[in-house]
Amino acid sequence: MALIHGGDIEGYRLAYGGEPLDFSANCNPLGLPPAVRRSIRAAAGEAEYYPDPLCRRLTAAIALREGLAPAQVLCGNGAADLIFRLALALKPALALIPAPTFAEYELALHTVGCAVKHYTLLSRYGFNFREDILEYLTPQLDILFLCNPNNPTGLTIPQVLLHRILEQCAAHNILLVMDECFHGLLDEPSLYTLRGSLPACGNLLILDAFTKLYAMPGLRLGYALSSNTELLQAMRGAGQPWAVSTLAQAAGLAALTEKAYLRRSRALIGAERAFLSAGLTAAGFTVLGGEANFLFFHSDISDLAALLRARGLLIRDCANYTGLRQGFYRVAVKSRADNMRLLEAMQTIPDDIHE
Amino acid sequence: MALIHGGDIEGYRLAYGGEPLDFSANCNPLGLPPAVRRSIRAAAGEAEYYPDPLCRRLTAAIALREGLAPAQVLCGNGAADLIFRLALALKPALALIPAPTFAEYELALHTVGCAVKHYTLLSRYGFNFREDILEYLTPQLDILFLCNPNNPTGLTIPQVLLHRILEQCAAHNILLVMDECFHGLLDEPSLYTLRGSLPACGNLLILDAFTKLYAMPGLRLGYALSSNTELLQAMRGAGQPWAVSTLAQAAGLAALTEKAYLRRSRALIGAERAFLSAGLTAAGFTVLGGEANFLFFHSDISDLAALLRARGLLIRDCANYTGLRQGFYRVAVKSRADNMRLLEAMQTIPDDIHE
Repeated sequence: MALIHGGDIEGYRLAYGGEPLDFSANCNPLGLPPAVRRSIRAAAGEAEYYPDPLCRRLTAAIALREGLAPAQVLCGNGAADLIFRLALALKPALALIPAPTFAEYELALHTVGCAVKHYTLLSRYGFNFREDILEYLTPQLDILFLCNPNNPTGLTIPQVLLHRILEQCAAHNILLVMDECFHGLLDEPSLYTLRGSLPACGNLLILDAFTKLYAMPGLRLGYALSSNTELLQAMRGAGQPWAVSTLAQAAGLAALTEKAYLRRSRALIGAERAFLSAGLTAAGFTVLGGEANFLFFHSDISDLAALLRARGLLIRDCANYTGLRQGFYRVAVKSRADNMRLLEAMQTIPDDIHE
Repeated sequence: MALIHGGDIEGYRLAYGGEPLDFSANCNPLGLPPAVRRSIRAAAGEAEYYPDPLCRRLTAAIALREGLAPAQVLCGNGAADLIFRLALALKPALALIPAPTFAEYELALHTVGCAVKHYTLLSRYGFNFREDILEYLTPQLDILFLCNPNNPTGLTIPQVLLHRILEQCAAHNILLVMDECFHGLLDEPSLYTLRGSLPACGNLLILDAFTKLYAMPGLRLGYALSSNTELLQAMRGAGQPWAVSTLAQAAGLAALTEKAYLRRSRALIGAERAFLSAGLTAAGFTVLGGEANFLFFHSDISDLAALLRARGLLIRDCANYTGLRQGFYRVAVKSRADNMRLLEAMQTIPDDIHE
C-alpha cells in the first residue's frame, strides 16, 4: 500500500540505509519536551495496566486549560483517530472540504459512504479562503471540515470569515469541524481559534493534538472539544474503549506542564520561518504561504522531493493533494543548522538538472 | 459513560485513594517482560517521530514467527482496534456471536448497523460449544466471531468442532473471525489454534495480541492474520494510518525475543490456576471453567465484586455479559501471594453478609 503522507523515515532507511533529515513531517522543531521524555521513562512500568478508557486525569487537565467541562473534551489516539470516529458516529451523507487540505478527512468520510464536495482554494487567489465559501454552505450539507492554519498551505482563515461560516453552518444545521492542530504553532494562537465560540455553538467541534505542538507524533494523542457532549459520547462509542495508551496519557499530562517550551518554540519558529522563507526565495523558489511551523512553496522542478531524498533530505511533495498538481511542496521549519542544510542542498539542485 | 470492562484501576483510585490488587484484567501474571520495559525506556526519544504506518519491521518479525508473508499480517492499536476496523471495512449485515463472550464484537458490529444473532452457551451444558452451532451457520450469515479460549468462561472449543465450523463457514461464504488473544496463555497453545488453516482458508481471520500474553495492555498492540490480503488492506483503510505508536512497535519487537518468559509464564499459570481453583472450590464457590490465565466461577453472593472492591481487590463481575446474569465472576490467575490474598479475602465474605 502506498503511503500518502510525509514522515516516512522507515521507507528512507530501507531504501538508503541511514537516517534522513526530515522536513516532510511538521512537528515542533524543539523536539520532544524534556518533561515528556522523562514521563515516558517513568511510566514504562505502567504499560502493564490497561489505560483508563475515560482518560480521566488527562481530560480534567485539558478541560482546565481550555476552560471547559471534562464532558466537553474527548481524547483520542491522535486527532486522526477522532476524525474516523466522527465519521463513523455521524455517518454524514454530504460533506464539504477544502482542496487542498489534510487527506484524512475525505478518507474517513469515504469509509461511511459520505459524498464529498470540494471548495477549491485557487492559486490565483493565493490559496486563500474567500467569501464565496458561504455559497457552498447549503442546507443539504451535513458537515464541513476546515483546517486552520490549513495544511499544506500554512494559511489562516480570516476570523471575520470564520465567524460568518460558523453562523451559516448553525443556520443550516451543518457541523463545523475545525482542525486546529497547528494552531498552537502560530505566532499568536489566540487570534486564530474558534474556541471562544464553543460554549454557544453546539454545531462546532474543534480538533487539536499534542502531536505537532509537543513534537510527540509517535505517542498518538489528540482531542476533540465541543459543547455537544452527546456527539462526543457517540464518538467515544465509535471505536474501542482503550484507544489512548497509558504512556500517551502520562505524556500528555507531562506536556501540559511545559509552558516555557511553548514560548521558546514560537520564538524559534518565527525567526526560522523568516530565515527559511527568505532562503527559499533567494534560491528561486516561490513561497506561497506559511504562518505556523511549515512553508508551502512552488518550484518548476517536478522531482525536487526525489532529488533531495537522494541527498538525505525528506520534503513533502504535495502533488497527491486533491486540488494541487506537480510542483507544490511543503517543508517544516526546523533549527537554523537544519534549515541551512536544506537550503544548501536546494541550491545545488537547479545545477544538477541542467547538467 | 459507564465502563463495562474490568481493569478500572483509575476508578478505584478515585473512589478509595489507593492502589487495588487487580484480578479483573486478564494479563500474564509475570508482568511486563524486562526486554519490553527496557525497549520503552530506550525508545522514549523515538516518540518524536511519526510511527511507521506499515509497521514494517514489526510486521516482518510477526510474519516470520507465524510462517506467513508480511502481507498476511496487519498490526493494530490493540486487537480491539482491529475488531472495529473489520466491522467498518466489511459492513456485514448479519453476524453470529456467542453469548457470553467479549463485548466489543457486538459493539463494533452495531457501529455499522449489523444485526447480531447469538449462539447462547448454556449453563446446563457447562457453557461449552456444542454441535448445534452448525445449525446457526446459514447462508444469510456474513460473519461469525469466536473467542478461543472464550472470554469470560476460559473454555476452549474442541478442534474437531472448530474445523467443522470453519468448513461450513467456507461453504456458506461466512467470514470466521477467531479471536485467539488468550491462546498463548493455554498450557499447550499449539493444540488450540486455527493458524494451520490460514493458508488454505481465505474466509478465516485470526486475531491475536501482545496485550495479554506479554502483560502490556497499556501499550496497545494487536494483529490480524489472514490469507485474504485484500480484507487486511481494506481494514488498513478503515481507520487512521498511524494507529500503532512508535513505542508499541518497539515494544512488540522486544517482546518477540522473550521466549523463556513465555515458558515460565505457562508453568506459573498452570500451577497457580490449579491452586486458585482448588481454593475457590474449598471456599464454597463453583468453578465453571478456566484453561488459560483466568477462572470463571459462580457464587450466590450477588455483590461479591463490590464487597471485594471495598477490601482493595478487583474481580470481574460478569453480570453485564449478554447471556449471563448476577452471580457469575471472572478472576485472573496471578502470583501465589496475590492469589492467597484473594482467597483470604473471599473466605471472610460469607461471614460478613450473614452478620
